[in-house]
Formats: sequence, C-alpha cells, structure tokens
Amino acid sequence: MAVLKNDRLLRALLREPVDVTPVWMMRQAGRYLPEYRETRSKAGSFMDLCMNPELACEVTMQPLRRFPLDAAILFSDILTIPDAMGLGLYFAEGEGPRFHHPVQNEAAVKSLGVPDPETDLGYVMDAIRAIRRELKGSVPLIGFSGSPWTLATYMVEGSSSKNFPKIKGMMFGRPDLMHQLLAKTAAAVVLYLNAQISAGAQAVMIFDTWGGVLSPADYRAFSLAYMQRIVEELTRENEGRRVPVILFTKGGGQWLEAMAQSGCDALGVDWTTDLADARKLVGDRVALQGNIDPCILYSSPEQIRAAVGQVLASYGNGSGHVFNLGHGIHPDVNPDHALALVKAVHELSPEYH
Amino acid sequence: MAVLKNDRLLRALLREPVDVTPVWMMRQAGRYLPEYRETRSKAGSFMDLCMNPELACEVTMQPLRRFPLDAAILFSDILTIPDAMGLGLYFAEGEGPRFHHPVQNEAAVKSLGVPDPETDLGYVMDAIRAIRRELKGSVPLIGFSGSPWTLATYMVEGSSSKNFPKIKGMMFGRPDLMHQLLAKTAAAVVLYLNAQISAGAQAVMIFDTWGGVLSPADYRAFSLAYMQRIVEELTRENEGRRVPVILFTKGGGQWLEAMAQSGCDALGVDWTTDLADARKLVGDRVALQGNIDPCILYSSPEQIRAAVGQVLASYGNGSGHVFNLGHGIHPDVNPDHALALVKAVHELSPEYH
Repeated sequence: MAVLKNDRLLRALLREPVDVTPVWMMRQAGRYLPEYRETRSKAGSFMDLCMNPELACEVTMQPLRRFPLDAAILFSDILTIPDAMGLGLYFAEGEGPRFHHPVQNEAAVKSLGVPDPETDLGYVMDAIRAIRRELKGSVPLIGFSGSPWTLATYMVEGSSSKNFPKIKGMMFGRPDLMHQLLAKTAAAVVLYLNAQISAGAQAVMIFDTWGGVLSPADYRAFSLAYMQRIVEELTRENEGRRVPVILFTKGGGQWLEAMAQSGCDALGVDWTTDLADARKLVGDRVALQGNIDPCILYSSPEQIRAAVGQVLASYGNGSGHVFNLGHGIHPDVNPDHALALVKAVHELSPEYH
Repeated sequence: MAVLKNDRLLRALLREPVDVTPVWMMRQAGRYLPEYRETRSKAGSFMDLCMNPELACEVTMQPLRRFPLDAAILFSDILTIPDAMGLGLYFAEGEGPRFHHPVQNEAAVKSLGVPDPETDLGYVMDAIRAIRRELKGSVPLIGFSGSPWTLATYMVEGSSSKNFPKIKGMMFGRPDLMHQLLAKTAAAVVLYLNAQISAGAQAVMIFDTWGGVLSPADYRAFSLAYMQRIVEELTRENEGRRVPVILFTKGGGQWLEAMAQSGCDALGVDWTTDLADARKLVGDRVALQGNIDPCILYSSPEQIRAAVGQVLASYGNGSGHVFNLGHGIHPDVNPDHALALVKAVHELSPEYH
C-alpha cells in the first residue's frame, strides 16, 4: 500500500495535532455533481452503480478531483447488508429504498442469515481495493455501515418511514424478537466492517440515521448497545495504524455523553447541537465530526465562509475536530458552493491549531 | 360561562396541586376514531371540516365521549393563518398541505397582510364558542396556533418539506427578509390566540413542529425569539383565571432551558427526552407536558399501561405534569388502546400527588 500523504483525518479522529482542520462531506460523491450523474446514467440503476466496483471507485474519486478534501468515503449504500441477507432491495423511482421481503415476524427473523462479506458483498470489497489503488495514498478512505437499528428500520418497515409503526410495534410488542433481529444484524455489521478494513478502509463510520426517533431508554437498549457491541469487535489496527471508528446518530445530540462511552474514537454531530456544548459533554474522550447545516450551501460563498468560521470557532482550539456537514449534501447544491466550504475550512482553521 | 368542573389541566399547567395527573392526547380528535371519519366524510374536504364550526365542534367532542380526558383541544389546522393571509391552502390527497401562493421573495413578504381573527378567521372563533357551550364546563378547552417559524416553513416551501431548502435558503441568504416574514406572522399569531382566548380558549399551545430542524443559534433567533414575543403579548387572564401558555418544539429537547425562560407556563416535551432530565433542566420554572412515544399505542393494553407507569415515574412526585403523547396520535391506532392509556394515567398517577 502507498504511504499516506495526507493523514489529517486520521490524526484529528485520534485527537492528535494537525496543521489545519480536515474536512470531508457526507455524500460528497453524489447527485449534486454532474460527473456523478453522468456515471450513474451509464451504470443503470443506483444499485447497479453500487455493485460495479469500477464505477463505484470512479464516483468515489470524483469529488476529490474537484475539491481539496481530506478523505474519500466509499461510495455505497447502507442497505447492502439486508440485500445480501436476501431481502431484495430495490429503488422505486422517487420513493427511496424498498424491500421485496421485509422482516415482520418471528419466522422471518429466524430465517435470516449473516452474509459472508467476501462472497456475498464482494463488490464492496472490490470497490474498496480499487479506490485504494486509485487514491495512491493521497488521502485516507473511510468505510461505513448503517447501524443495526437503522438497518432494522428499513428491514422491518420494508421502506423508508416517517413514524416507524412496524418496527416500533415490534420493539414495544415483541422486544425479544427485536433483540434477535438486532443481534443478527450487528453480527453482520461486524463482519462487513472488518472485511472493509482488511480490504483497505482506513477509518470506519457507523451511520445511525434513525436512532434519533427513539426515547433515551430505547435508544440505549435498541441502538447504542448494538453499536457498542460492534465497536468492541472491530479490527482497530491495520497497516500499522489505528483504524478510527466514528459513530453518528442523527438527532442524537442529547445522548453524546453515552455515545462517547462506547469505545469509539469520534462522534458525528448534526447541526442541532453546538460543538462547544458537545465538546463539554464528551470531554477529551472522543473527537467530534460535523456539523454545519447542509442547507448553508444554498447561500452565497461569502455567507458559507462566515458560517464555516462560526463552526470552527464553536469547536475552538486544538485537534479533535473533523469538519463536515451535519448530514448529507443535498442533490441540488451548486458544486462551487461545496468548494467554497472546503476552502474556507482550510483557510480559516490554522489559527485553532 | 359554566363553572369548570375538572380543572386539573389548568392546575397542573400552573404547577398547583392535583389529585391525579391530567391527560389529553395531541390530535385526540382525528382519523383513528371511526366517528371522526364519518363526520369528515359528511363535511367534504379536511378544510371544509375545519371551517364548519358545528362539525369542528362535533369532532372536538368525540374523543371526550369515549375517554375520560382532562381537556378538549380545538379541532383546527395550524395553517389557518397563512390561508387567511391569502396563500390559498389546499390538501392534495395523500400529500399533506400545499399553498397556491407560497411566499418566496421580497414582494410576497411585503404584500402579506395580518388577518383580523374575528372577520378573517371567524369560523375558528365560532367553533370555540360552540365547543365551550357543548363542554358545559366539564373540562377546559385548549386553543392553539403554529409557531411563526413553523408556519413560515409551509408558507415559504409551499408544502411539507424534508430538508427545508427554500426557507433555509431565505434564512441563510436573506436573514432580513426572513425576520420580516416571521415578525408579520408573529403579529398574526398574537391576534389569533388572543381572539381564541376571548372566544373561550382556557389555555393555549404553540406548536413549533419544525423548530427542531435548526441549529441552536438559528433556533433562538428564528423560532424561540418569536414565540417569546407572542408569549409577552398574550392575554394571560380571562374569566377570572390565568390562561396558561404551552410551548412545544418537536425535537427541542436540547433547548428546554432556553424555552423555559420565555415566560410561558409549560413546555411540551417529545419522547426523545427523559422527563426527569427535562425537569432538572427547567427547575420549577415551568410545567411539563408529554411525553410517551405515540407508537406505544401499537402494543397491547398491558404494555401501554407499563409504559405509562414509566413516564409517570420519570416525572416523579408533585404537580406540574400533564400527561400526553410526545406527538400526535397516529391514524391507524386502535381507539381501545387510547382508552387504556388514558385510564392508566388516572389509575397509576395518584401515588405521585
């Protein structure tokens, strides 16, 4: 493997000194880029793109050619695991993900198998190996997975949801079954992320997109507990370096203290929490990643720059901050505005280091 | 006006002693009730129902005939104000509210008028007067409005939204214009709620459904500041009693301390915050209303009862708690389960008083 030239991301995630605050953007490879839309149209469906290692590598690289980003993130979908479990993932145009075979009863939970990552999800591992070759050590590659709770919301509901009636029905009505499903999913995530690390992911992030719809007690029992189990079982060192683990619960601002005790290295924070407050809550236990409102990219480059300055100031002095959006970049954003954000982070952050 | 027989709600909102914890449910008059669906089908459209004082009164009363609730809440929609401003509210089947004339530029903001409640929204005041006659002093009637920020999200987006690109574009790009729109909307809310109080509303609630999509600083500047302005200008006494004001920001758990300083009497709390933690944050400044996950109503009456017990225990001893769901009741809930919840609150709460 090529020597890593820019290791700011890995250093910041481990709270080691850096020259400037590293920056990447959730969903940085995506629809807001015309070159992405072109590759996507060549690939066929969204899942065809995810399952084609060469094209997945291509779209992963696209934002790095435009912006001086400090990390690449694997282009993939969080629902690859349930798809490999046989649920039959498909995307209804304009409706988001759906499953042909949702998991809504005991028999369905019991019949679920834990996929073997190299055989059942080999296309992801092949994409990672291709991206690492292509990156040539320029920046680190982040691998990722959905959290067990978040994967389970789609697996049980069979689609995106607003109120989560089916999975909450299961959680409140059959907590034993809910735990069985989550345990199986967590086991699959451990294998999947460890395979990503073996294939070349230099940091991994667990996206808990829907943990924030739970009560504090339910969050701890049904989401955080399983993320913690994963963190404990992950490969934490590879290629002679620590592999940092980032947990991100959208809407999890009230639970940062509990999340920081999971054994992870860093927490993603959305924009509803001030980084200064978050830092007080987690102390020097973990790094923080975030947290500008992605809608800021609808305003002017000058306004974006000012808002970047505010986020940098809210984190304050010292390492342990990875600049990011508080959620994925929206598909109708002007790419030049994303560039303004990335440049502003690099230009305005040296004073904090 | 008839003497109020059951004043638990008003007492609890003012943290005065009560015998049992009062309970009502957000959207208690609604689609989960077959009698509501019948009245609705007679009325025509949803807005036809809202605009017909007699039928609005009828559906307001329906849940009180089924359940021993401690309050009635006006049946109406939060978007009556922008409709009266001339935006042309309509409901596309299965798609939620929409406006024919969204407010997306300076000219549109400047041309907005502040509606006169008795002339432009007289159907709401007539409904309140009818409901008070019908209630005969059995329980108090709660009036309500959307918060300026929440109303503005619909007014600017022109519909429901997931990411709020248009209003956030305005907020970040033209904060001056955003403030003009919010100031006008706040003035309309003040007139509207004061007219509701004059017509007979014995408590009022401000629903800030979308304040939770903001950063802490933006929440304070663009949502809380305007709710505070409203609180300051509301009639706080009528018919010889204090008229309590409840603020509810969905997803506002991180901001309860700031909200409690607004001058309101009570805060609505969703289920993502533990009431014990909320109580620590607000001290004895305000009462708390909430906060069971509405999805609990998908589980069995026994499970509902156990969950009610947990919420009562989380608030603990003493007055100042109004039991409620953390958000509106879902339309596919079994009404018998709602009954189980209401009864459980009354049966399990005396030990805390």
